Amino acid sequence: MSQQSPKIGFIGLGRMGLGMASNLQRKGFPLTVYDINKDAVGALVKLGAQPAASVAEASRGCDIVITMLPNSAIVSEVVGGADGVLANTAGGALVMDMSTVEPEVTDRLAAEAKQQGKSFVDAPVGRLASHADRGESLFMVGGAEADFQRVLPMLQAMGSTIHHCGEAGAGTRTKLVNNYLAVVSCQLNAEALTLSQRFGLSLEKTLEVLYGTTATNGQLKIAWPDKVLKGDISPGFTIDLAHKDLTLIVSAANTAKSPMPIGAAAKEAFSTARARGFGGNDFSAMVDVLCDLSHTEKPRLKQ
Amino acid sequence: MSQQSPKIGFIGLGRMGLGMASNLQRKGFPLTVYDINKDAVGALVKLGAQPAASVAEASRGCDIVITMLPNSAIVSEVVGGADGVLANTAGGALVMDMSTVEPEVTDRLAAEAKQQGKSFVDAPVGRLASHADRGESLFMVGGAEADFQRVLPMLQAMGSTIHHCGEAGAGTRTKLVNNYLAVVSCQLNAEALTLSQRFGLSLEKTLEVLYGTTATNGQLKIAWPDKVLKGDISPGFTIDLAHKDLTLIVSAANTAKSPMPIGAAAKEAFSTARARGFGGNDFSAMVDVLCDLSHTEKPRLKQ
Amino acid sequence: MSQQSPKIGFIGLGRMGLGMASNLQRKGFPLTVYDINKDAVGALVKLGAQPAASVAEASRGCDIVITMLPNSAIVSEVVGGADGVLANTAGGALVMDMSTVEPEVTDRLAAEAKQQGKSFVDAPVGRLASHADRGESLFMVGGAEADFQRVLPMLQAMGSTIHHCGEAGAGTRTKLVNNYLAVVSCQLNAEALTLSQRFGLSLEKTLEVLYGTTATNGQLKIAWPDKVLKGDISPGFTIDLAHKDLTLIVSAANTAKSPMPIGAAAKEAFSTARARGFGGNDFSAMVDVLCDLSHTEKPRLKQ
Amino acid sequence: MSQQSPKIGFIGLGRMGLGMASNLQRKGFPLTVYDINKDAVGALVKLGAQPAASVAEASRGCDIVITMLPNSAIVSEVVGGADGVLANTAGGALVMDMSTVEPEVTDRLAAEAKQQGKSFVDAPVGRLASHADRGESLFMVGGAEADFQRVLPMLQAMGSTIHHCGEAGAGTRTKLVNNYLAVVSCQLNAEALTLSQRFGLSLEKTLEVLYGTTATNGQLKIAWPDKVLKGDISPGFTIDLAHKDLTLIVSAANTAKSPMPIGAAAKEAFSTARARGFGGNDFSAMVDVLCDLSHTEKPRLKQ
Repeated sequence: MSQQSPKIGFIGLGRMGLGMASNLQRKGFPLTVYDINKDAVGALVKLGAQPAASVAEASRGCDIVITMLPNSAIVSEVVGGADGVLANTAGGALVMDMSTVEPEVTDRLAAEAKQQGKSFVDAPVGRLASHADRGESLFMVGGAEADFQRVLPMLQAMGSTIHHCGEAGAGTRTKLVNNYLAVVSCQLNAEALTLSQRFGLSLEKTLEVLYGTTATNGQLKIAWPDKVLKGDISPGFTIDLAHKDLTLIVSAANTAKSPMPIGAAAKEAFSTARARGFGGNDFSAMVDVLCDLSHTEKPRLKQ
Repeated sequence: MSQQSPKIGFIGLGRMGLGMASNLQRKGFPLTVYDINKDAVGALVKLGAQPAASVAEASRGCDIVITMLPNSAIVSEVVGGADGVLANTAGGALVMDMSTVEPEVTDRLAAEAKQQGKSFVDAPVGRLASHADRGESLFMVGGAEADFQRVLPMLQAMGSTIHHCGEAGAGTRTKLVNNYLAVVSCQLNAEALTLSQRFGLSLEKTLEVLYGTTATNGQLKIAWPDKVLKGDISPGFTIDLAHKDLTLIVSAANTAKSPMPIGAAAKEAFSTARARGFGGNDFSAMVDVLCDLSHTEKPRLKQ
Repeated sequence: MSQQSPKIGFIGLGRMGLGMASNLQRKGFPLTVYDINKDAVGALVKLGAQPAASVAEASRGCDIVITMLPNSAIVSEVVGGADGVLANTAGGALVMDMSTVEPEVTDRLAAEAKQQGKSFVDAPVGRLASHADRGESLFMVGGAEADFQRVLPMLQAMGSTIHHCGEAGAGTRTKLVNNYLAVVSCQLNAEALTLSQRFGLSLEKTLEVLYGTTATNGQLKIAWPDKVLKGDISPGFTIDLAHKDLTLIVSAANTAKSPMPIGAAAKEAFSTARARGFGGNDFSAMVDVLCDLSHTEKPRLKQ
Repeated sequence: MSQQSPKIGFIGLGRMGLGMASNLQRKGFPLTVYDINKDAVGALVKLGAQPAASVAEASRGCDIVITMLPNSAIVSEVVGGADGVLANTAGGALVMDMSTVEPEVTDRLAAEAKQQGKSFVDAPVGRLASHADRGESLFMVGGAEADFQRVLPMLQAMGSTIHHCGEAGAGTRTKLVNNYLAVVSCQLNAEALTLSQRFGLSLEKTLEVLYGTTATNGQLKIAWPDKVLKGDISPGFTIDLAHKDLTLIVSAANTAKSPMPIGAAAKEAFSTARARGFGGNDFSAMVDVLCDLSHTEKPRLKQ
């Protein structure tokens, strides 16, 4: 019946998934939800969602199942496993994985879905958890045009910027390229601002110059002034997660035989930061790590 | 006599200096000029400048001497040498070096000038030679406030953006930090876009995504679309010059004991580019080098 | 019955495993063997071994099961999977994995074995396939002393150097440290000899000097003169395998929060070699890759 | 008079030069010596040498002048300067520079000497200061065969291993290649042993394994057991000097367009060590720096 709204399963209510699912539920997409964390499920139930006792139960009878999970292994198991999403949905169903995973996992699951007469969309998420809470995420979507149109209303409920990047797999790959630039920019900025500090330059004046030339970058200009440069290193995105993303990206690049010399150097800078116990800080705090390493005063904007 | 305009010497009429001196001469600052290249001197003479036969002659009697020279060794010799600018100017004179040099050279010359009762301003130049031609350069200026005011009218004749970064030496150091970010960004973009190409992503779509997130940077967004991404690798700023700047920066950082892990990796990427014969191309063409290395199609925007 | 020889299963008859199993079978250790490659199984059957139709069949009733497999995922499945070695052996059995895998996989399988009242030994293999053929391998063994004694006669049949490195897991970890040094040495030598070639030095004279100082290393002194330096780049150990090992090692180091700046740089040098199509060459040919990159004559000893 | 021994000047009595000159003087080569350090000159005078008041005085009338100086700039000045060795020696004289300098400086001085009808030999020194004291240095010599024969008796008085590497310039270049391997090996070993420590392996057992494979290297096997691995980090060769050599080598490689990806990464590891205040320690202590960075126990052999 065409007027009937699709039955939607949502699996994975972590720091990002919780906000995303909440927005869906609140904006008219009734969900069946599952997570191993009962509190997170409870929060959605309060908003009107149906709880499920398992991945299978969250998938059965659904037109669309959305997954938002921590890593490739879990996505493989939850979507493609013996009692997973694909095993518990009917032909014609659409699976949308919004996790950040290895491209090979995306490709394999997309191929399995296709073989079963189902649709697969990868739609990893940009921006921070706070954006997800407010329904202001950015999505990089891979999938056939018809499938993209099918999930578009839901993406619009969860985010404010939606890019259709190409066929299945293109969303995941675009996210890797995007995060590569953002994460390595942090180490680049760390080296530049540590040098500036060692040089004894005025931080405010230096930034004024940099912001007006092609030396600038989004992290330095948009993200950092509200984080490390004003002394806030509470995690919007942790050094640990940045390291995880870099690991994923360098690995995918190695598989694609695309050399990454500064990517690899940046990854070890993040490794050093983690070895020193700074993994839980915001990734803009990479500059603090380098200043600490070299006994240099941390860069902080005058209030 | 207060109404009299200062006597100005200008030494160094290379690719940048020629444009800068021409703007000065045309906009009411009569110059005495010197360069080893007679043609360059001739071009200024046509605009009304006085030719000098030597550094000494270009310096003698001047209130202000401007130098725009290729490297630290030449600046040391021309400004501080036995028959150089300092040796041929009177107390009260001001020397403004606009070359890009090692900070230690700037510091040493500034100290020598001070000891002789003279002023020293370092004012290295940002942007491209084409900007210098049009009087649209950016200057990062180090020097005492009074000295800065003394050269400001001249800087305004040569450029459109002028930053007073601090005391003598601060201009040179700010330029190094600025160029560090711009040059390493090119290798960062090279790695990201080569990966994107290997992934088979649409260049236009990928850039659309990147330009809207904190992954973006000035090189990728402003410089590259008009250079390598439309197939123009003629040099605005060559890979050889970028390598020279990186060498200067990493060396200055080593002296300052400020570690540069990705800077060093980037420098060797530029070394590889030069070893392969691409040193004369625009530095945005670093992406072509990496694509060539990995047998990948070069990224070009559809017309 | 104490006089009875143990029943031994051997799973994995690849380039290394085939030689190792053949030595065991020939030297008085009757094997039940399994591999997906029927030809390899056939070769062992000709030497007197019993063929098995599955991992399960090769494991059932065995006192000792030896595995020699390509990677972590396959070892996990074959040893720990639903129909794997552990599932098909009785309490008291000993599993010896001789593959090169992630330390976490070794640890997990050792823990599972222990829980089931079985023994686990990790004994990865050093040296080349040609050594394995001749029963001259080197083994780095992790396991309890009693378990080590139990497998020692078999190790002696397969190799000529046996190190008991510590408890279960210590063999795998020692191999990673060992291969780290050997593999990165190749890139180090590549850079040094390319520089020597660019400098126009005599290869013979340079090596004579290096061999007499602490600048030397085992790859340069022992391995290279018989491989790349005499023009033989046929694989004893391929660049692809070296890259795989480096990936394993850097990943294990990242997990252990042990920074690897030159390891990461070396890995990308191997990535570049693979991107350029040299992955199938011997890993000493890294110097040819760098010479090729920089248009330099390859180093070859005069006959 | 043919029987007369040559008149020899020796300039530069630093930590290495003092031992070298002392051996010469003691073994029958009467010297005229100069150094800015009067105490060092005094020590040689006690052994019977003639003191000189200047470079010029130490050079005048000499058949052979030996220089052993800290860096390229000083060598340029002392040998090639207005009142230097070349300016104060007659045609037919031989200058032997034993300093470690940029190859371009060696080449330039050799060319100047040749133009003046003089001979030039570069003979940089291997091994430690303690070897120089005992007359057990290693020399890498560049120069024409006749010139080499002319200085050979002196080299034999100062050292125990003498390599004639080729024409003038070949000694300097061979030393750079040699030191490149030795210095980067230290960072390589630092990464490997830090990983080994993080892995909880036995240091003694790990070294036993490594020493028997191609993973070994001269630093690990010969130098380290008597230095950092037994807790002695007093400088045989400091991290600061290793960094200086690496800077020289990477710069020479950049000039030669020979890429150095792991050399550059190693240099920044040494930069980090210096930034953290460890520059005065022996270069084997790079492993302590990395262990310190990653909160890992330092590797020490059990007594």
